[in-house]
Amino acid sequence: MSVSPDTNHGARTAAAVEFDGTWYRLRAASVSELLLDPQWRDRATTAAGRTEPLPHPEFATVVPSPGKIFCCGLNYSEHIRETGRAIPEYPTLFAKFADTLCGPEADILLTGDSTRVDWEAELAVVIGATIYRGDEAEASRAIAGYTVANDVSMRDWQHRTLQWLQGKAFDASTPLGPVLVTADAVDPAAGLDITCQVNGVTVQHGNTATLVFSAAALVSYISQFSTLRPGDVVLTGTPGGVGMAMQPPQFLTEGDVLTTTIEGIGTMTNRIRIAEPARV
Amino acid sequence: MSVSPDTNHGARTAAAVEFDGTWYRLRAASVSELLLDPQWRDRATTAAGRTEPLPHPEFATVVPSPGKIFCCGLNYSEHIRETGRAIPEYPTLFAKFADTLCGPEADILLTGDSTRVDWEAELAVVIGATIYRGDEAEASRAIAGYTVANDVSMRDWQHRTLQWLQGKAFDASTPLGPVLVTADAVDPAAGLDITCQVNGVTVQHGNTATLVFSAAALVSYISQFSTLRPGDVVLTGTPGGVGMAMQPPQFLTEGDVLTTTIEGIGTMTNRIRIAEPARV
Repeated sequence: MSVSPDTNHGARTAAAVEFDGTWYRLRAASVSELLLDPQWRDRATTAAGRTEPLPHPEFATVVPSPGKIFCCGLNYSEHIRETGRAIPEYPTLFAKFADTLCGPEADILLTGDSTRVDWEAELAVVIGATIYRGDEAEASRAIAGYTVANDVSMRDWQHRTLQWLQGKAFDASTPLGPVLVTADAVDPAAGLDITCQVNGVTVQHGNTATLVFSAAALVSYISQFSTLRPGDVVLTGTPGGVGMAMQPPQFLTEGDVLTTTIEGIGTMTNRIRIAEPARV
Repeated sequence: MSVSPDTNHGARTAAAVEFDGTWYRLRAASVSELLLDPQWRDRATTAAGRTEPLPHPEFATVVPSPGKIFCCGLNYSEHIRETGRAIPEYPTLFAKFADTLCGPEADILLTGDSTRVDWEAELAVVIGATIYRGDEAEASRAIAGYTVANDVSMRDWQHRTLQWLQGKAFDASTPLGPVLVTADAVDPAAGLDITCQVNGVTVQHGNTATLVFSAAALVSYISQFSTLRPGDVVLTGTPGGVGMAMQPPQFLTEGDVLTTTIEGIGTMTNRIRIAEPARV
């Protein structure tokens, strides 16, 4: 099952579900709101939950209002090996905010004078049930499903200090979508191709089977210290091929088109726009 | 003016204001809710906004639901000098979540098998108006006021990886309160003593006049990439005297009482409790 918000209702959004190739509006303003209902699966999968069909849905940020977004750093074994590092014992975690997200077709409007804007295609996990101090089996059950993210990173800001947050939390810089594919319909551990293209040229190509910390392992680990709730998001890290590691380094500039795809989930297409200079 | 939530209404909280030594209930469930009203100052300061007096207020987390909590690392010049480092060009920033906060009199119940639980007394800034890409003058006007925080840190988790978040974001580990003193009533740049005591022994003693990045400078800097909104919180860093820097290092254990005070704002008293072991 795939669920997604659409923006086909004026300025408002609605949650929607795809069924036999057609999208249907659900009675919730967003997937975030839908997931707050413990009966969200039933609401999305029964004919009674669906309202009118949406012939031309536009896709908004798949979960617009997570209370928590955890992101994992280096997490693809192929990429770790190519950098010569050891497989880590613990996941490297940092945060984003709800305001950091944007839609899967949105322009990414960048402020802050960054000249080192980089891409990071990532599998994103969406939480469907509250979990605190759960083991991996409980974590698996707490996962609503999966979507696509691009952890667009301002490397200059990221490396101004030892803590990455300021290069990772620019408003509306992390596209998330286009749809949430529920955990019964897709299994990242079995291996999903993940790719990132810049202006049609493939720059990243990995597979989720090589994640060091699986989706369930990350959710369980985080839940040891922090409660995860419906609509929260965990980004699972990016495979090799980021721009700063290229020789010479390559970064995104005005007008570049970023295409992020995960097999069995979908594709996001985002254009980079550079805003006027920062004021301080 | 001081405003604060109190828990004197059964399980619910209410915003309250102190006036001539008496606390009065306001028509808002929390200070977070109060600050969403652009007229919050009028509501808090006019007799029409105040309802019944509260003879025995209990103080809850002063803003319970910030959408963003930014924290600044090393930010006291005396402390930086004693570590032999250079004054930084940019603030080191990391995040917490609303769930990370707890009340100024709450027990701090720690999970996760940490054996290196440390203290960090901090001045906290509460945002009172939306700001995006503002200069320092605009940032000053966007500050509702100040409160006290203790950025209780699990040093073992903090240093498992290069990113500090996992040692800084344990649920209900960061007390915030007891009151919000509005910016017209207190000026950290003029110098406020800040102290931390463990079981009555002073372990940290600094002064907010020695902050490298002032409250307004931090708010302006963060706003260059991230919108700050009413009720958001910025923690400004801790002075010297943390436990991990002692010879030998000293950490908090079951039953320890942590007392955090900022001159002109107030005192928080929190008891440390250690929960059962982690499950993974």
